[in-house]
Formats: sequence, structure tokens, C-alpha cells
Amino acid sequence: MLFPYMGRVAQLRVVLASGSPRRREILANLGLNFEVAVSNFDERTMDKAAFPSPAEYVKANATNKAMEVALRLLANSVGHPEVQIPHLLIGSDTVVVLDGKILEKPLDESDAHKMLSSLSGRAHDVFTGVSLIVPRPRGDSNAEPLVRAFAERTEVQFATLSSDLIHAYIATGDPMDKAGAYGIQGAAGSFVRGVNGDYFNVMGFPQHRFAAELVSLLEDKIL
Amino acid sequence: MLFPYMGRVAQLRVVLASGSPRRREILANLGLNFEVAVSNFDERTMDKAAFPSPAEYVKANATNKAMEVALRLLANSVGHPEVQIPHLLIGSDTVVVLDGKILEKPLDESDAHKMLSSLSGRAHDVFTGVSLIVPRPRGDSNAEPLVRAFAERTEVQFATLSSDLIHAYIATGDPMDKAGAYGIQGAAGSFVRGVNGDYFNVMGFPQHRFAAELVSLLEDKIL
Repeated sequence: MLFPYMGRVAQLRVVLASGSPRRREILANLGLNFEVAVSNFDERTMDKAAFPSPAEYVKANATNKAMEVALRLLANSVGHPEVQIPHLLIGSDTVVVLDGKILEKPLDESDAHKMLSSLSGRAHDVFTGVSLIVPRPRGDSNAEPLVRAFAERTEVQFATLSSDLIHAYIATGDPMDKAGAYGIQGAAGSFVRGVNGDYFNVMGFPQHRFAAELVSLLEDKIL
Repeated sequence: MLFPYMGRVAQLRVVLASGSPRRREILANLGLNFEVAVSNFDERTMDKAAFPSPAEYVKANATNKAMEVALRLLANSVGHPEVQIPHLLIGSDTVVVLDGKILEKPLDESDAHKMLSSLSGRAHDVFTGVSLIVPRPRGDSNAEPLVRAFAERTEVQFATLSSDLIHAYIATGDPMDKAGAYGIQGAAGSFVRGVNGDYFNVMGFPQHRFAAELVSLLEDKIL
């Protein structure tokens, strides 16, 4: 989606506020040059129950992550006029939702087994929230910072998984750092009978929707 | 899906009759060890119009590809009892289908522009056929070779693409060797609003269905 805007895009300082290798891969796939600054925002401070929906939760979490990095980088540039402040900061958060309940990263192997057993043989939802922060819209230092957040939902249909299969998958170590205890781009890809929606959203970043939002910021000359 | 069978799987000589890097990646992802032997079968000899459906066409094409490699490798092993004949050969074929018409690789850039324009703003289907050939079921040299073929369909929803965007994408060279003139795993990933079905099928290989069929051959002790 970005091809016709690559000249302008190449001039932008873009910061991804996430350490996820999958997100990095998807952004690079779009032809974007960017830096990575992992956010120090502690999502355990968020009260999930206070949000009306998983979509609102991941949007808020994504914004908090990007905002922490934005504030840190802007604070560092105070008194250093030679440092270019970022044009765009990108935060993102992904959760797995089953029966309205958010599944996070598993606490331990027994928790991972419980999660994978609950996903076996049925469909669940993956929500990824993305937040785009433009500290100086239209390059105007007097303009208010712009924050645009959205969430994307993808349904994932799992095959029936035997307890043996789940144990063998956990033994690979792959599930332990992943929301819902699986990564679709790894060996668990074969557990997935199908998806309905953006596949990249399940990997952690909704490629099409992000590109469309970025194009709209470029067309509106906000970036 | 294969984890509980990895001991047996590691003993098999598996041959992928396709040069596609995407197929290689997906098979490797499943933890399979395999060789690649690109098929010399000329699919232009196939009369597409003679098939009742795209599913039957890709199944036949996949089988012809695997069969050509199977015959070649078996012929080479005649008089060489020290050469292990393959346990399993895998053929595969992928087409893009719009309004019942099969789109192949584009002939030239103008053809690619026509294809991408026809896909813009609407949904199409991707069919991948896979054929599994076991020359000696149950290791019995007197048994008839087994051929098992299946096809998987995935719906792909495309965003509306401007003519500028299509021209810029064609200029990257990416579309020219791909059925339907796009590759979902590359820069065209952002054109895709969503899919319905197995995402890996769109890349050229239905990971879940293949793994399930392989498990059934293992459980039935055919392999």
C-alpha cells in the first residue's frame, strides 16, 4: 500500500515501541525504515476488568507503550536541538480471547497446557491494538500531538490437539513467551485449520490496516 | 501436529517435488527433513478446460509433478540396491481463481497489471493441491504404490488498489513469477484485508491439512 509514498516515508524517523521480532519482520516487509525502542511501560498496572472490551484494552495498552517511549525520547532531546525528534511512534499489543476472557502469556508449563487444551478443537479471537503517535503533526512544533489507535480482530480455528501433542509442543519452549501459549508462525502453525481476518494480526501486527492508516496520515499531510 | 511422531518421521526419506522457497519454508517449519527434486513435468501439457473444477486441476497437477520425480528417482535406483528409495514424495500446485477462471503466472508486466486490477477491491480464491506418493506402502516391495491427493481452498479479500500502486508493485519484480501476480508473504501482504481459511495455503502449501494427512499415513502404518 505504501509504494507510491516511499519518497516521503524514507525521510521519516519512525520508532517501533516493541521488541517483538514478528512485528519487526512485518514492518520491514512494508519497506519501512525504523528504529526499535522497547517500551518500559508495565502492562500489569492495567486493570483489564475496567475495559468494556478486549479491543479497547489492546488499544489502551498499545498507546501506553508508545507514549512511554515518546516521552522518554522527547525528554532526551531537550537541550539537544541537533537530535531529530521522531515523526512517528508505533505501539502495539496482542491478546488471545476465548469466551470473552483474555489469555496472556502462560505463567508456567502447566498454565500453557491448560490454555492449549482450552483452545483445542474450537475457534478463538486474536485482537491486536496499534497506536500511532505523531508528536508534531504537519511538522508544526505548536500543534498538539496526534494519537490514533485502532484494533483488529481475527478469528482462529484450532484443530483438536491430543494431550501428547500439547506436551510435546510445550517441551519445545515455543509457547512460553506467547499470548495464548502458541505462535502461529512457528511449529504451532499446523494446529491452525484456518483463520478469518488478517493473518498478520495473529502474528502480532495488522499489516493492511496499519498501512492504510499510515497512507491516510501521509495523504492528510499530517506526516 | 507431527511432534508425537518425530522419531518415525526422522527415519523417512522424504522428497519435495517443488522448487518453491515458500513450500520449503513451510515443510521445514513442520520439523520435517527432506530433499528437493524439482519436477520436470510440463504443466502446459494439461488442458485446464477438461477439469470439472480448479480443485481437481491442482490435484492432478500436483500428482503429475510428484509422479515424474518418483519415476525418475526409482529408475535411477534400479541396479543400485545401496540407494534407499524414497518413502514419500510430495507434489504441490497452486492457482488463483477469480469468477471461475484460473489465473496463472503473468505473461508480462501488462498482463500482471490486468490481473492485479481484476483482483482489486474484491475477494478471490486460492487453491493448492497436494499429492502424497508412497512408492512402497508399509515398506512392502510387493504393495501397490499409494497416491493420496487433496486440495484446499482459501478465500482472499483484496483492498482497492490504485493504478499507481499496481505499477509501483510491478516495478519491484515481485509479481512476475507468481500465480495471480502477487505473493502474500512479500510486499503485497499489505494488499490483503483478510483471508478465510488456511493462510499457508495462499503461500503455496496447506500446512495443517498436510500434517493431518501425514499423521494418518503414520497411524495407519502406511509410512
